[in-house]
Amino acid sequence: MSDDFSFSCRVYIEDTDAAGIVYYANYLKFMERARSEWLRELGLAQSGLRAAGVQFVVRRCELELLKPARLDDGLVVTVGVGRRRGASLDFEQKIWRADELLCEGRVRVACVDADSLKPRALPATLIELFQKQAGE
Amino acid sequence: MSDDFSFSCRVYIEDTDAAGIVYYANYLKFMERARSEWLRELGLAQSGLRAAGVQFVVRRCELELLKPARLDDGLVVTVGVGRRRGASLDFEQKIWRADELLCEGRVRVACVDADSLKPRALPATLIELFQKQAGE
Amino acid sequence: MSDDFSFSCRVYIEDTDAAGIVYYANYLKFMERARSEWLRELGLAQSGLRAAGVQFVVRRCELELLKPARLDDGLVVTVGVGRRRGASLDFEQKIWRADELLCEGRVRVACVDADSLKPRALPATLIELFQKQAGE
Amino acid sequence: MSDDFSFSCRVYIEDTDAAGIVYYANYLKFMERARSEWLRELGLAQSGLRAAGVQFVVRRCELELLKPARLDDGLVVTVGVGRRRGASLDFEQKIWRADELLCEGRVRVACVDADSLKPRALPATLIELFQKQAGE
Repeated sequence: MSDDFSFSCRVYIEDTDAAGIVYYANYLKFMERARSEWLRELGLAQSGLRAAGVQFVVRRCELELLKPARLDDGLVVTVGVGRRRGASLDFEQKIWRADELLCEGRVRVACVDADSLKPRALPATLIELFQKQAGE
Repeated sequence: MSDDFSFSCRVYIEDTDAAGIVYYANYLKFMERARSEWLRELGLAQSGLRAAGVQFVVRRCELELLKPARLDDGLVVTVGVGRRRGASLDFEQKIWRADELLCEGRVRVACVDADSLKPRALPATLIELFQKQAGE
Repeated sequence: MSDDFSFSCRVYIEDTDAAGIVYYANYLKFMERARSEWLRELGLAQSGLRAAGVQFVVRRCELELLKPARLDDGLVVTVGVGRRRGASLDFEQKIWRADELLCEGRVRVACVDADSLKPRALPATLIELFQKQAGE
Repeated sequence: MSDDFSFSCRVYIEDTDAAGIVYYANYLKFMERARSEWLRELGLAQSGLRAAGVQFVVRRCELELLKPARLDDGLVVTVGVGRRRGASLDFEQKIWRADELLCEGRVRVACVDADSLKPRALPATLIELFQKQAGE
């Protein structure tokens, strides 16, 4: 996990459901917040990308829910850079409460044109990053 | 309440919070679903309005939360047409579970240009409706 | 798809995001609404189950996002009964807009004790249903 | 505004809608996150309160939406302690983007028993705080 980007967030009432735990679909939101901050760190704020006609859309996602998070929990969400497949990027993400792994996710994000929503080339910064990552 | 438009919806797990009741901000969603269906009945689907450059935005809202709704409750949401003030419309809305009043809301919606988000004239259908309503 | 349960829902503004399409995590909500109505049809309202100490929690889920849904779209969500694995049930779900397939999901739901959230036996109605389904 | 508690948050895609702006009901979530962190600073984490049988529920709320927030905006949410009325507390909250005021809210929160949801006395820490505030 050493090379992953980490993002911290807190569980608020809005995130919970009547079972007293985090509503599972909300883990996808936490994971996306983390990817957004990771992009920002790379100098790629999504509002700026969108102004440049670039947008990311999720094409597939997968969640394993191991243990429930609860109100007030402080969570750490990691962003692991997976593989590049053309204009798509695969991410491996984990959500931790201290040293307990609560949730694992795999998310495929595609780069599309902001207007047409059709696939388009990734920003160069991301291609370089994934090339370095993969030792391509 | 006799002239109001009514819309039915169900409480699902997504709507609840760790207190075991509907998360209060979600009543605003239920009220907006009802306004959307009321507009649709008037022949004004919002996707069509938006294609015509018209969009509605909420400018102010107020909720009184009288009794909590719970998982699986069947709710009825009413849309009462209030006053027109230039390019804004006031709505009075109520949420019922059978004959129990759970929540009351007042919502001011403004008509804006879909691109600039600046105020623009209401669609004629709505002006006529509010004129009839007000006996203007 | 002939034996599947079907549930209809509408896309409201609350469901969309700044890309002008349904926010992908919300498809999981639509799928859960459909499973909830399917359970209700079987006479198993979740509030009743919960009162009896039974609760369902999602253990894993997977979404393939094929085409985006947009504001005002009328969607049909199907619930296909998959396999039973002990106290867990697998569902295959699809979301359609007329005859266009927008989204496919696989969801594993476990039956747990409502207080401890520990695994417990499925309600008999569901076991019978899955046995019949599987020709067990 | 000088004595108010301040909380920072970021606008993510989950917070926006098809109008390209923050979905208005979500400002209530941002305001609640700020109240939760304010309580935490006072040593009153809500999970702890709940374990002690104390819970807060919103009884009424009011939002004025002055200017829209957008994707990637960094927001500051203030918590102004208003009046105490028996077991209820009034808060005045504002949401800022740098020095632009985007949204104002007034929220009444009642202290209830976590099981019965019936009104109960406020925690002493909060009564003292409001007494000091009011110069009672």
